[in-house]
Amino acid sequence: MKKESSLSEEIIDVALVRGFVFPSAEIYGGAAGTYDYGPIGTLIKNKIVNLWRQRFIYEETDHNIRIWEMSGSRLLPEPVFVASGHLEKFNDPLTQCKSCKKSFRVDHVLEDYEVEVTDGTPLEELTEKVKEVGAVCPKCKGELSEAREFNMMFKTQLGATGGHNAYLRPETAQNIFVSFRRLTHSMRAKLPFGIAQIGQSYRNEISPRNFLIRMREFTQMEIEYFVAPEHLIDYPKFDEVASSIIRLVTREMHEKGEKAMDIEVEEAVEQKLLPNQPLAYILALETEFLQLLGVPYEKFWFRHMSPEETAHYSGGNYDLEVDSDYGVIEIVGNAYRQDHDLQCHAKASKTKLRIEHDGKMIVPHVVEPSLGLDRIFYTVLESCYRNDETRTWTWFAFPPHIAPIEVAVFPLRKKPEELIESTIELYLDLKDIGLDVFYDDSGNIGKRYARADEIGIPFCVTMDLESSKDDCVTIRDRDSTDQVRVLTEDLASILQMLIDSELTFVELKEKYSIDEGLVEE
Amino acid sequence: MKKESSLSEEIIDVALVRGFVFPSAEIYGGAAGTYDYGPIGTLIKNKIVNLWRQRFIYEETDHNIRIWEMSGSRLLPEPVFVASGHLEKFNDPLTQCKSCKKSFRVDHVLEDYEVEVTDGTPLEELTEKVKEVGAVCPKCKGELSEAREFNMMFKTQLGATGGHNAYLRPETAQNIFVSFRRLTHSMRAKLPFGIAQIGQSYRNEISPRNFLIRMREFTQMEIEYFVAPEHLIDYPKFDEVASSIIRLVTREMHEKGEKAMDIEVEEAVEQKLLPNQPLAYILALETEFLQLLGVPYEKFWFRHMSPEETAHYSGGNYDLEVDSDYGVIEIVGNAYRQDHDLQCHAKASKTKLRIEHDGKMIVPHVVEPSLGLDRIFYTVLESCYRNDETRTWTWFAFPPHIAPIEVAVFPLRKKPEELIESTIELYLDLKDIGLDVFYDDSGNIGKRYARADEIGIPFCVTMDLESSKDDCVTIRDRDSTDQVRVLTEDLASILQMLIDSELTFVELKEKYSIDEGLVEE
Repeated sequence: MKKESSLSEEIIDVALVRGFVFPSAEIYGGAAGTYDYGPIGTLIKNKIVNLWRQRFIYEETDHNIRIWEMSGSRLLPEPVFVASGHLEKFNDPLTQCKSCKKSFRVDHVLEDYEVEVTDGTPLEELTEKVKEVGAVCPKCKGELSEAREFNMMFKTQLGATGGHNAYLRPETAQNIFVSFRRLTHSMRAKLPFGIAQIGQSYRNEISPRNFLIRMREFTQMEIEYFVAPEHLIDYPKFDEVASSIIRLVTREMHEKGEKAMDIEVEEAVEQKLLPNQPLAYILALETEFLQLLGVPYEKFWFRHMSPEETAHYSGGNYDLEVDSDYGVIEIVGNAYRQDHDLQCHAKASKTKLRIEHDGKMIVPHVVEPSLGLDRIFYTVLESCYRNDETRTWTWFAFPPHIAPIEVAVFPLRKKPEELIESTIELYLDLKDIGLDVFYDDSGNIGKRYARADEIGIPFCVTMDLESSKDDCVTIRDRDSTDQVRVLTEDLASILQMLIDSELTFVELKEKYSIDEGLVEE
Repeated sequence: MKKESSLSEEIIDVALVRGFVFPSAEIYGGAAGTYDYGPIGTLIKNKIVNLWRQRFIYEETDHNIRIWEMSGSRLLPEPVFVASGHLEKFNDPLTQCKSCKKSFRVDHVLEDYEVEVTDGTPLEELTEKVKEVGAVCPKCKGELSEAREFNMMFKTQLGATGGHNAYLRPETAQNIFVSFRRLTHSMRAKLPFGIAQIGQSYRNEISPRNFLIRMREFTQMEIEYFVAPEHLIDYPKFDEVASSIIRLVTREMHEKGEKAMDIEVEEAVEQKLLPNQPLAYILALETEFLQLLGVPYEKFWFRHMSPEETAHYSGGNYDLEVDSDYGVIEIVGNAYRQDHDLQCHAKASKTKLRIEHDGKMIVPHVVEPSLGLDRIFYTVLESCYRNDETRTWTWFAFPPHIAPIEVAVFPLRKKPEELIESTIELYLDLKDIGLDVFYDDSGNIGKRYARADEIGIPFCVTMDLESSKDDCVTIRDRDSTDQVRVLTEDLASILQMLIDSELTFVELKEKYSIDEGLVEE
């Protein structure tokens, strides 16, 4: 199974073969930048989404602050993007080959010549740099055109008459701002509150690349936190995270090429390294969330983006960056958008987008964590991927709560029929009590363990010919490949404890005996 | 609160005001046929989706048949729709006003003249009928043009170079057929199996109308069941539903204008009223599912569509139709697609789309239930809406498992502070054990009960000044508006039983006493 290739190539290989992700419309040559999640990928993705809903919406909502989820249209009419500025400014710098007519992003072309350009570099400067380094068409070595702006929104027409331009949203956030009045009125909202949304966004990338990292259709999990000015310095839940430690790269540190520092959230706010308490709160929450997904603390940090990388209205952007096989990638954007969006849409729509606070009508400020689900999914794959000496196949060390399946149930052999029957009965019993189980009797037991490892199933349960005599089954642990034989009647509770991480497999081995069960100390 | 208007108008009114659904980009005048789900609508919608996943995927999957969920790109390249026939045939008949230039669906215009035309009526015939009845522009009374075909897919361009047409998928099904090879190989699939998908589909309706019934962006929950020829007459799980009763309208009954008949699923197959066992199985499942959502059995039926309403390759289409304030509407389409889709894509892509079965490579047949989530959502609203004499406000009788929130927790008054504090403590305790609770202390208790009823919260819990002395709280039942006082320590388990429908409120009233608790008989 093992191959000599880069980490990301190995992962893509497993992803294709084991039902995680494949190119959309592959039998027609595909369409660059679009992917389908296969059955295993969808199971994992749904669990990540559920965990986000649980941690960022359900657990966050209480008597102090409410986070509501909405679900808006992906297709939006032109005035929305005139007001938001996307129609004018959501551009990438494009160059076209004068011979083969292919298009490229100028900054990507320059990267191949080891010229790094930041977002927002003027077109003239880019054209100048292309000439300086003598950059040519990456496909045919032809001459490249001057740089020009290319709008990244997908455009279409509403209705049959023409003249009604619509666009696929380039971010989920705009629905929330545009529906602000309905949202606040219908929910009788009081500051601070949050509106969350998960769904697809679309960017017509000139040259999609790097697998799930730069896609044309992708999924975002965003929350807009609406706060009053005083919440910036006194956010209701800030105390809960004040002493949490996050990893931070300041602008100065980034310029000097320094690595991230560990800092207490409260100290970062006091030192003005973070602009306000709600944003600091969110960074602490994300630090916890990524670790729940199996991404090690050392692998990611928050970087204060430079002024050139940041919109003019921003009060501070902090990207969650990860070290990956594709280099440093941004997987979450955190932005203090101030009151920019509501002011823009209020002006353009001639609508009052305000909310009552302490007896006055005010335009609230916005702090936004924007999580890229596909990039997070890829980061989880990379963090959990194992190609080591413990076995001759590759495996994923997913935390049990995001593994595609919790438990696989196997008969040791395909005969006798009674063994198959009683294994199926056990499988159905475990399913009935709500465990996320999978039954398989094809191939030999070794192959089944390998296939379970390859998609990261944490526990396998095997019934054998002895089982009918001693009422025992074998639990096999993915991480250690160790096995423990337990009474069938103890199985469900032991599995539940293992899945909930209330018991480790090492502890099970040490403390369990068939005669005495699990001995509590 | 009550108004004199039609049922659907009343529901739209509540939907707008109480955070269920609002027009997208409303502050810019909206875009016809697109809606945002607000916080309350999203909660209900997510619960319907979860119930679909639970019933159609998780519970269906066992050792006999596996249903896997995939999640494919909404944006797909042109060759997909050339092969599927959508580019050529997915058209609506359009007429344009020669004066005001507005476009209309010819069949909709004719409906206003009480001329009913079935899908698939030739264009010439439609033009003829317009002349016959003297139909004019519904907006300006201008002369209408001849009928022509209008393709309903939204078109856009991939990349900057041009020439790469892409379309927003008009149904989720195509992803599944196109990725068939990857799906079967990666999952080592064996017939029969199902691939499920939930996601947005897009149809550029000439004239969207009827709220959530005819939208341009909508959500489908589809499953493609792949079966071998022998499964058509011997489907593994058929016995489980053989004696289930469904409501059916045959072609003959429809022509005669007859109402649906109740018939056992097995008998319907034997009488050849249904084409095969898997399709019959699905109709039984849907009958159960809709009732779980609170839609009464008498309100819906399956109609065998006429040949004119059915694609040429279909082996039988059975729409789930519902009596609604908008007339009879289709909320689920069930189709026996035979092997048409896989044959089309195999031919167009020059790929073998086959699977091994009993030692031979075969092209499986497909049976497809396609559930329209938005139409189902509307049907649930209509089925559960109450405007009656029990109270002076309107309410929703949602089954507890799809109510937006399970339990609201209130202090009786806003003072003293200790009452607020202990109510918040109770709220947080209920939240900690995983109940879906909501806290509110604004307005008076009567208004809070009314607001809870308006969004269909089944149970309210109120703490009062006595609570600190007698350790009791009051549970108020939405449906009866009755109240029962219970010990705070019994509260969580009683609520859980009420939510799980293991206990009715009437039973609680009869069997519970503060001294003895819940007396089992």
